[in-house]
Amino acid sequence: MHFPREEFLERIRKVRAAMQARELELLVVADPANIHYLTGYDGWSFYTPQVVLLDLEEEQPTWIGRIIDRNGGRHTAWIDEDHLIGYPDTLIHVADNHPLRFVGEWIRGRGWGGRRIGVEKDAYYYTVRWHEELQRGLGRGDLHDGDLLVNHVRAVKSEREIDLMREAGRIAEKAMQTALEAVRPGVRECDAVAEITRAEIRGLPEAGGDYPAIVPMMPTGAKTSAAHLTWTDEPYRADQPVNLELAGCRLRYHSPLARTAYLGSQPPAALAELADRTVEGLNTTLDAIRPGMTCGEVEGVWRESIARFGLKKESRIGYPIGLSYPPDWGERTKSFRPGDPNVLAPNMTFHMIAGMWFDDYGFECSEAFRVTDSGVETFADFPRQLFLLE
Amino acid sequence: MHFPREEFLERIRKVRAAMQARELELLVVADPANIHYLTGYDGWSFYTPQVVLLDLEEEQPTWIGRIIDRNGGRHTAWIDEDHLIGYPDTLIHVADNHPLRFVGEWIRGRGWGGRRIGVEKDAYYYTVRWHEELQRGLGRGDLHDGDLLVNHVRAVKSEREIDLMREAGRIAEKAMQTALEAVRPGVRECDAVAEITRAEIRGLPEAGGDYPAIVPMMPTGAKTSAAHLTWTDEPYRADQPVNLELAGCRLRYHSPLARTAYLGSQPPAALAELADRTVEGLNTTLDAIRPGMTCGEVEGVWRESIARFGLKKESRIGYPIGLSYPPDWGERTKSFRPGDPNVLAPNMTFHMIAGMWFDDYGFECSEAFRVTDSGVETFADFPRQLFLLE
Repeated sequence: MHFPREEFLERIRKVRAAMQARELELLVVADPANIHYLTGYDGWSFYTPQVVLLDLEEEQPTWIGRIIDRNGGRHTAWIDEDHLIGYPDTLIHVADNHPLRFVGEWIRGRGWGGRRIGVEKDAYYYTVRWHEELQRGLGRGDLHDGDLLVNHVRAVKSEREIDLMREAGRIAEKAMQTALEAVRPGVRECDAVAEITRAEIRGLPEAGGDYPAIVPMMPTGAKTSAAHLTWTDEPYRADQPVNLELAGCRLRYHSPLARTAYLGSQPPAALAELADRTVEGLNTTLDAIRPGMTCGEVEGVWRESIARFGLKKESRIGYPIGLSYPPDWGERTKSFRPGDPNVLAPNMTFHMIAGMWFDDYGFECSEAFRVTDSGVETFADFPRQLFLLE
Repeated sequence: MHFPREEFLERIRKVRAAMQARELELLVVADPANIHYLTGYDGWSFYTPQVVLLDLEEEQPTWIGRIIDRNGGRHTAWIDEDHLIGYPDTLIHVADNHPLRFVGEWIRGRGWGGRRIGVEKDAYYYTVRWHEELQRGLGRGDLHDGDLLVNHVRAVKSEREIDLMREAGRIAEKAMQTALEAVRPGVRECDAVAEITRAEIRGLPEAGGDYPAIVPMMPTGAKTSAAHLTWTDEPYRADQPVNLELAGCRLRYHSPLARTAYLGSQPPAALAELADRTVEGLNTTLDAIRPGMTCGEVEGVWRESIARFGLKKESRIGYPIGLSYPPDWGERTKSFRPGDPNVLAPNMTFHMIAGMWFDDYGFECSEAFRVTDSGVETFADFPRQLFLLE
């Protein structure tokens, strides 16, 4: 158990308050990060259906998952054995039944069938079939949207969570340093990524690494124009840029970090200039952040800063981060973009990524940080610049 | 491009035949593996909505994704630029609009709004909100289930696909050998996994590794009773078992491999006996496989084999594999379990995992293989036994 029981109970109190504000009496939690947040359950079992049920009264939530994963709950979750429910393996990948039908029937059997029930309508893995089968098992169709309810509670981190993200930030530093040493002309992309992944998972001597929710994204050459390409087994070529977006992960808490490197001593003037201006925009924006600002206002600082250079970025420049599972390390609740009304508060945690992607090249530089009482604390300490690798 | 254009066109012909059999005129493909199968599109962009639309007439499918990922399509997909559609970044993570509403509106604008439309109802990432927003954009609610349609077409692999899975099998051998060298008493679990992940991604000198759809699952001690736990940063302890489930991945094609090791020279008699009997059951079952058998009949061979020792396994012992993205390397279409009626054919590819998990310990041993004209060809060549690590 990586958090004291009291911290789980405090999380549950907050989620219940949010449920009551939405007039929900039972929440069916599908997002693996939300399941972990409420119970501590951890394992790569989210490729088959699993949920956590939270009502308003019982002290403990109930985990329902595949029967062969129930022992995983015994080893990782704080809840008692009688709150770990395994459904039969025969429900996996069949046409005429489904684990979510089991969940619906279980809810009815528990006497909760008549409650006002919320589901996470846009959570990863909560497919439309999950929804239909849950309704079938419940014998009713009037489910309410509880999407992002737990995610919003996760926004403000505890001291213990911040400590984990600081460790993740130090892991990210190590992984980025490894990247700058491994990426060289003639080295295969996969061989460089292998070293980076190794560094991510080794972590620190006092705090081992966990798998980040996203693998290193390292497009090179003209592919730096595409943000989310991964790697190939081609060798890096001289006089080409390479994007380096990676993360440290500590006990499922993330600190992403992005930088851009150039494989040579003479980067194109346009790239070097773009790098300087992007970094200046990032610095200006991070310096301006204060609790009480909206996410939209933060983006406004960035927009104004780069507009002085005639630059413009259509896509958002950041989002909240923390506890996460594949396929994303973001919390999906807020964005640094024009008009976003969400207000910053101390110990909210974000990844701000200044990524400028044009048709033939791109530059990116990012920081993961928490909002403090008076500004920001970045989780990694790594120079913000275009790195020249020779 | 890792496949000739003609192979993509052949895949599309098969999918269209399956669409016609289900009376579908337009398929909205959400599963990242299916998107890749039809277009070649590859990137870690599936954390925001993306789909491929396939109708019955046009030569090329249409990819619709986030605008900043459109360049990824230019670099990885075989389809022309005018079939790569980017939706605005402002649709990401907002309450009052959604990328799937854009998709629905785009389909209407294309003149396809009145077609019989299929969607992948239980595909990873196809959330109930995706479904509702697609319906909203389309202005209609009568969508049909096209789930697993493409997956079933993927079942029989081409020679080129088999070659990739053979390479993946050789990568899996290297990763497993690395595991047996790295796991030792006193070594932190994360440090061993770091070496394994490094081996997975380095791959072969002539064929670099890709990221497997699942990270190494390596529970140790009593946690070997839980199939899908990953790792911690605790050191391995002497006289404990450790499960090793990993995969080689080559250009998104997988060959998983599971073994069990014991950290000492004197494994408990019960574990050693379980290992012998489980391996014998696996060997017997693999030897018995012929094209024309059903998946249920395959499981029957296993069931009978281990019943002689008084053993019984409730959960399925395998599933089809191939092209995949997180969170699963399986195809979700078939299972080696009692009564499964799916019939084996040459060049179908499976992962058979003989995993016996009890409350306090477990043993697992697996093979990835293709069905041949007369039996099986395993993709990896690795001893089937309990490994003693001293």
